[in-house]
Amino acid sequence: MSAPTPAEHSAYDESPGRIMAGEMAQQPAVLRRILDEGAPRIREVAAAVAARRPRFVLLTARGTSDNAALYAKYLLEIRLGLPCGLTSMSTTTAYGARPDLTDVLVVTVSQSGGSPDLVASTKAAREAGAVTLAVTNNPDSPLAAVSEFHIDVMAGPERALPATKTYTASLLALYLFVEGLRDGDTAAAGRLPELAARVLGRQDEVRTLAARYRFAERMVITSRGYGYPTAKEAALKLMETSYIPALAYSGADLLHGPLAMVDNISPVIAVVTGGRGGEALQPVLDRLRGRGADLFVVGPAAQVAAASAGFVLPVEGVPEELQPILEILPLQLMAYEVTIARGQDPDAPRALAKVTETR
Amino acid sequence: MSAPTPAEHSAYDESPGRIMAGEMAQQPAVLRRILDEGAPRIREVAAAVAARRPRFVLLTARGTSDNAALYAKYLLEIRLGLPCGLTSMSTTTAYGARPDLTDVLVVTVSQSGGSPDLVASTKAAREAGAVTLAVTNNPDSPLAAVSEFHIDVMAGPERALPATKTYTASLLALYLFVEGLRDGDTAAAGRLPELAARVLGRQDEVRTLAARYRFAERMVITSRGYGYPTAKEAALKLMETSYIPALAYSGADLLHGPLAMVDNISPVIAVVTGGRGGEALQPVLDRLRGRGADLFVVGPAAQVAAASAGFVLPVEGVPEELQPILEILPLQLMAYEVTIARGQDPDAPRALAKVTETR
Repeated sequence: MSAPTPAEHSAYDESPGRIMAGEMAQQPAVLRRILDEGAPRIREVAAAVAARRPRFVLLTARGTSDNAALYAKYLLEIRLGLPCGLTSMSTTTAYGARPDLTDVLVVTVSQSGGSPDLVASTKAAREAGAVTLAVTNNPDSPLAAVSEFHIDVMAGPERALPATKTYTASLLALYLFVEGLRDGDTAAAGRLPELAARVLGRQDEVRTLAARYRFAERMVITSRGYGYPTAKEAALKLMETSYIPALAYSGADLLHGPLAMVDNISPVIAVVTGGRGGEALQPVLDRLRGRGADLFVVGPAAQVAAASAGFVLPVEGVPEELQPILEILPLQLMAYEVTIARGQDPDAPRALAKVTETR
Repeated sequence: MSAPTPAEHSAYDESPGRIMAGEMAQQPAVLRRILDEGAPRIREVAAAVAARRPRFVLLTARGTSDNAALYAKYLLEIRLGLPCGLTSMSTTTAYGARPDLTDVLVVTVSQSGGSPDLVASTKAAREAGAVTLAVTNNPDSPLAAVSEFHIDVMAGPERALPATKTYTASLLALYLFVEGLRDGDTAAAGRLPELAARVLGRQDEVRTLAARYRFAERMVITSRGYGYPTAKEAALKLMETSYIPALAYSGADLLHGPLAMVDNISPVIAVVTGGRGGEALQPVLDRLRGRGADLFVVGPAAQVAAASAGFVLPVEGVPEELQPILEILPLQLMAYEVTIARGQDPDAPRALAKVTETR
């Protein structure tokens, strides 16, 4: 995908990050569209997949979509009790492995649906007996064509190189799909568009907070449970926009080695999901505070108050498993604001193309 | 500043890194012990597990052992065609998920066999119908006790906080186990002890190379296929000893975002396994060179010659799937030498305990 031409923008708006800013701002409307227009079709797909009685799920994705796939892994394991794995794609594409995938559901997540290795490994999975589902932002993509089932995440064209609205759209679509597999109630998702709009309306607050990372040379981002995909996605977003090396760890893994790297000059961002994931993170937060870490929390007010700084997430009535759809929003804004503060353009990170052609 | 070689240490030696140096130096003997004394028992365990005809494998581990588990995932998928997943442990320990694990083999890798969350999740897996296998360095551990099967990696007591000999021992034990499942020929592993000794004998060469990272503020480590666990383990080793933020990416994932972070002041280490993984990495190496990256290669002579620097790995007659057992050795030495050069003690990274009690 080529960079947008000036004609595609207002002649008066040439500011860095305008494309990413516009796409972030569309997220409440995208979530609303999925709930209003997409949900019935997603429920049909889920019913058809459930009828095939998969016993094991393999999730295949790269980059931002890989973080959406990891969110789906938590949902599938916790809500459905289905054992899951994330695909090591090179086993198929480089080594030609042809596992027996009878009873296996293979879910491939890709905003473009165009990366050749994803298409090839999904095609191979279908030939090996898997039920295949593509979750993409492009129903006309090669990936959708080779998959037995397809879910459209309905985010509209995404032109900024850092994916934002396709990430939250993928999370919501995957949530509706997984709940559809168990015929669950998804009414709580109805609050997301309004809450997302409230979070995104606090960009000035994030801009002030972002100032603290203007000169950060590295960053650690941690969480546990449902918030862990948020930590990984926030790290990716920060790296691909601001180039700050951001290391994401589950709280438990952080204690198994990388904690040595944290000191009072390495800022830590903790994603504290309200619920069991946040509770399981508590000992890690205590250890970090004990080490004098500069701790920024995205989460409940009490956790933010106990930290060096933070962003209080409005999650009234939102169950833990849906909070990741809101949690990433202030961190998208943070990546954007830090990048702007550093005088770089979040829309066009050096060296990246929108459709990454890995093979 | 030069560090003492392992042979220069004595019982009275109090120099930094003496424990890690001693344990790294034991690796050829440990590999020999596994081949001579451990292999028959591993083959028996493999035969008993194969008789249960597992259809899926879940691997559970943290830290260094998680990288050993990832190596086993590649082996299981490529050599056996068994679909695999890495466990998200919090789904069991924090959320109480109780998946149906009929036909599932759960392999838990832990040098100490003592981390409560690993013990709890393995116990839960067994109750949920899984065939459970513990791979540990402690046959008397709680983990070994709760698992139906146990493989002892026979590395002897490990006292340095950065795990070295238990990592290579776990890789070899897992290789012998997976080949045992398919009744494969493991004769090629017989060359490993001698080749490992040759690599470790080149510590002076690594010391010279390590000087280039004396002032590095961050590092990217990449590989593909069988070498990817090596990249992750090298990053962990560097972080927990020298505290350099080292980011590990599969070559394909690197192109999906983090490449933006690589420039001519961020050194890159590429692990180029001789075989299909190395071939699949070639486009990534070309992109990195095109961006002017400072590229250090561990791999074949031709790849090292085309890079800024590197370590030529002796792998004559060693199939690709066994090369990771050698590949990590120069990178263990590198972590050690960079840490010594920085005036820190690799034996005792701040903030870490040898048995990490995550729950």
